[in-house]
Amino acid sequence: MISLPHQLIEPMEEKKITARAEDYNQWYLDVIAAADLAEHSPVKGCMVIKPYGYAIWEMMQKTLDQKFKDQGVENAYFPLFIPESFLKREENHVEGFAPEVAVVTHAGGKKLEEPLVVRPTSETIMYEVFSNWIQSYRDLPLLINQWANVVRWELRTRLFLRTTEFLWQEGHTVHASSEEADAFARTMLDVYGDFAENYLAVPAVLGQKSDSEKFAGAHTTYCVEAMMQDGKALQFGTSHFLGQNFAKAFNVKFSDKENVEQFGWQTSWGVSTRMIGGLIMTHSDDKGLVVPPNIAPVQVVIIPLWFKEEQKEEILAAAKALQTQLTALNMRVKMDVRELRPGEKIFHWEKKGVPVRIELGPKDLAAGVGIVARRDGGDKESIELNKLPEHVAKVLENIQQTLCDRAKTLRETNTVSVDSWEEFTKAIEEGKFVMAHWSGDAEDEAKIKEESGATIRCLPFAQKTEEGSCVYSKKPSKIRVLFAKSY
Amino acid sequence: MISLPHQLIEPMEEKKITARAEDYNQWYLDVIAAADLAEHSPVKGCMVIKPYGYAIWEMMQKTLDQKFKDQGVENAYFPLFIPESFLKREENHVEGFAPEVAVVTHAGGKKLEEPLVVRPTSETIMYEVFSNWIQSYRDLPLLINQWANVVRWELRTRLFLRTTEFLWQEGHTVHASSEEADAFARTMLDVYGDFAENYLAVPAVLGQKSDSEKFAGAHTTYCVEAMMQDGKALQFGTSHFLGQNFAKAFNVKFSDKENVEQFGWQTSWGVSTRMIGGLIMTHSDDKGLVVPPNIAPVQVVIIPLWFKEEQKEEILAAAKALQTQLTALNMRVKMDVRELRPGEKIFHWEKKGVPVRIELGPKDLAAGVGIVARRDGGDKESIELNKLPEHVAKVLENIQQTLCDRAKTLRETNTVSVDSWEEFTKAIEEGKFVMAHWSGDAEDEAKIKEESGATIRCLPFAQKTEEGSCVYSKKPSKIRVLFAKSY
Repeated sequence: MISLPHQLIEPMEEKKITARAEDYNQWYLDVIAAADLAEHSPVKGCMVIKPYGYAIWEMMQKTLDQKFKDQGVENAYFPLFIPESFLKREENHVEGFAPEVAVVTHAGGKKLEEPLVVRPTSETIMYEVFSNWIQSYRDLPLLINQWANVVRWELRTRLFLRTTEFLWQEGHTVHASSEEADAFARTMLDVYGDFAENYLAVPAVLGQKSDSEKFAGAHTTYCVEAMMQDGKALQFGTSHFLGQNFAKAFNVKFSDKENVEQFGWQTSWGVSTRMIGGLIMTHSDDKGLVVPPNIAPVQVVIIPLWFKEEQKEEILAAAKALQTQLTALNMRVKMDVRELRPGEKIFHWEKKGVPVRIELGPKDLAAGVGIVARRDGGDKESIELNKLPEHVAKVLENIQQTLCDRAKTLRETNTVSVDSWEEFTKAIEEGKFVMAHWSGDAEDEAKIKEESGATIRCLPFAQKTEEGSCVYSKKPSKIRVLFAKSY
Repeated sequence: MISLPHQLIEPMEEKKITARAEDYNQWYLDVIAAADLAEHSPVKGCMVIKPYGYAIWEMMQKTLDQKFKDQGVENAYFPLFIPESFLKREENHVEGFAPEVAVVTHAGGKKLEEPLVVRPTSETIMYEVFSNWIQSYRDLPLLINQWANVVRWELRTRLFLRTTEFLWQEGHTVHASSEEADAFARTMLDVYGDFAENYLAVPAVLGQKSDSEKFAGAHTTYCVEAMMQDGKALQFGTSHFLGQNFAKAFNVKFSDKENVEQFGWQTSWGVSTRMIGGLIMTHSDDKGLVVPPNIAPVQVVIIPLWFKEEQKEEILAAAKALQTQLTALNMRVKMDVRELRPGEKIFHWEKKGVPVRIELGPKDLAAGVGIVARRDGGDKESIELNKLPEHVAKVLENIQQTLCDRAKTLRETNTVSVDSWEEFTKAIEEGKFVMAHWSGDAEDEAKIKEESGATIRCLPFAQKTEEGSCVYSKKPSKIRVLFAKSY
């Protein structure tokens, strides 16, 4: 095995990742390929999530699952198939979903009496069942979550962001009052916002959708919207207050404390593998993927270097000892002992976005140090071995904060408040988040979209009322809303 | 709230569970309903896995997932849909699965050019993709697992045991040699056997399937077979050595060390939510579910009892302190503080099969003790509070062992070795596991099945060769195989 001292090792370029500035869309696909996250499958529109991409999803699942359980939510599992007639019971719901469903018409060698839809979301099948589970107010709140695959037929797909089949969780709850249900929908939105900011380092805008953009069948849709590096918005997750719309369609009723029969008040909320797309587009750079430490399947990679066979044993022992120390501090650590050139290994882990890389060679070991490199940029540091574990723990925290701060700065720098249509279209064209007055009129909203390509991402909670006039129609408005182009 | 001292509390009967002796099949369904594990869904053949049933599945997943990772296996995710043409490429495979697939013919409002099959298992779609992942022996072994839902159209369904949709894991590996692949299939079988015995307390028989019973497309199928309380066999899991059958159909090739192109050697292996059915039928009794501690979502339930409102605070504080102590010893503990009669609570957790129940009332607290009841039978014990945590830890271990020993004894007692057809049919009718000589002839096997209802569950590894003659045809035989009726 041929090796070079670490001072001479520079990452080697294999297949080059297209620069963001050159072709942002191609860059996104190159990052995914270089990090080996996912690929298109032989089935049109469906993706294969490869082990490293799936490991990131598992980290997301594990973290969110605990947060859901902390809210008293329990997991369950409902059928993949939904009778076509169920979908039709809530008028807006079927309008929203009917055009994009996949339909099973034959099974077991026979034509089915009633076609079965492959679930695009599970409100209908779950609420039909809930109606049998709930009798009295004592059965409420009912707090259920499901981790599952769903299918929405898409013509134009993009890995993680828009695929025919995707993985997600869908929470579904029933409450005894409107206030409680609405508050729970908001609580779950906060869970998503907190997860985005503190784990994914994606500081997002929380708000409410306009009526045109809300979930098919919802009373109110709340959302988490984030800015990608190209200025476009990505919807990370949504939480819906469903009112009694579905309860009435599926007869979800309970006897209240006065023994009067009432319809339940419901919520549903979900995030999906789409988050991985958002994670990629928030932090990655022209060298490839960058994963925030709090969600990274591998937080630290140790690369032992040796130049002569007789050095190998000592170096590997020291690297192994270091791994043990880091693992004891609850870090997720990988040691790369493959028989490859060090440069190849460094390049490999860089493309995969592992936050911290530690190189350990004979000279370092003799000097009692290890070399620490950060994936978020910055110089390599030579750190005394006995101080390394504590140092790396701090570096990980610092990287997490740095990535989040950068994303926040990017968003704040690229968010503008405008009052004229001219400024509006210019800012949208420049890929900005635009805060502007809107009349509340759906027709104006549609025209703004048609003429500028921008949609209302949300009515941010953080906004204060302010007298003004719609940036498009000049009709009176009391609040600014967030416009942007979006994924 | 009305309460009684714990000495007087006896479980109250709500809806009675049918006794095993009376109607074994109804008993099985009653246990599931009483423990609130699952129910039939509005979609024919599909079940709803309810929160407590799903919690058991999550325990199974978590444990097995770690065992797979310990073997170097990585998780990934492949599409739900499989082009119909893929299924047809391996001749035996399509013969086995074509009659039971669900087919999507329409999607996005249009008829599809090629129908898509909802995966009944993923060999075909995965291996098509694997053929692009593998170039050289350096890419091997490839060790992939997927947690997913699969669909096999069933006419006669039974909760957990046989449902149209079920949840499972399917491992798929590619190796550079026949020996390595076969050994890996055996290793994964051992993982299943170990899991069954040490977590589910199901001491199973490991062996090999006869050719008629093996997986459609496999070279060899290994299996884990367990005896249920009615003497019937249940297949817990299978591991297949696929040889090069699929590799040839899907062009899974690699360049070996001499740069010669070779077909890969493959394995696949899986267990499913069916295991929950096996778990129920191994340990549960006429009072309801019994869950072995190592797989129980709740290992210990604490039931605080108070009779006057002024006792409540002190009792709850003591119960809470106890919960903290038990949790610190890594036990999964639940405290039931619901405003229900103690008898109702006791009955509730008994039906759910929680291994240990601790009752804590004012008199107990005054005496510095807690009352410990075991779900596997045996007397209630009064244990000093300061010794309780350690005591309960030991009781849990003991319950685990007791359940496993009981299941082993049941199987051993009900396994007979016979040499005549008369003894054979009698033993099968009595619901026994029967070790008998078989000629190796598939026609004899078919006739035995036809005439006795018994199938060859496996050729147990533990058997030694022994000269004999087929119990049915009297043709010469060198080994006894395991016959039984099965689920």
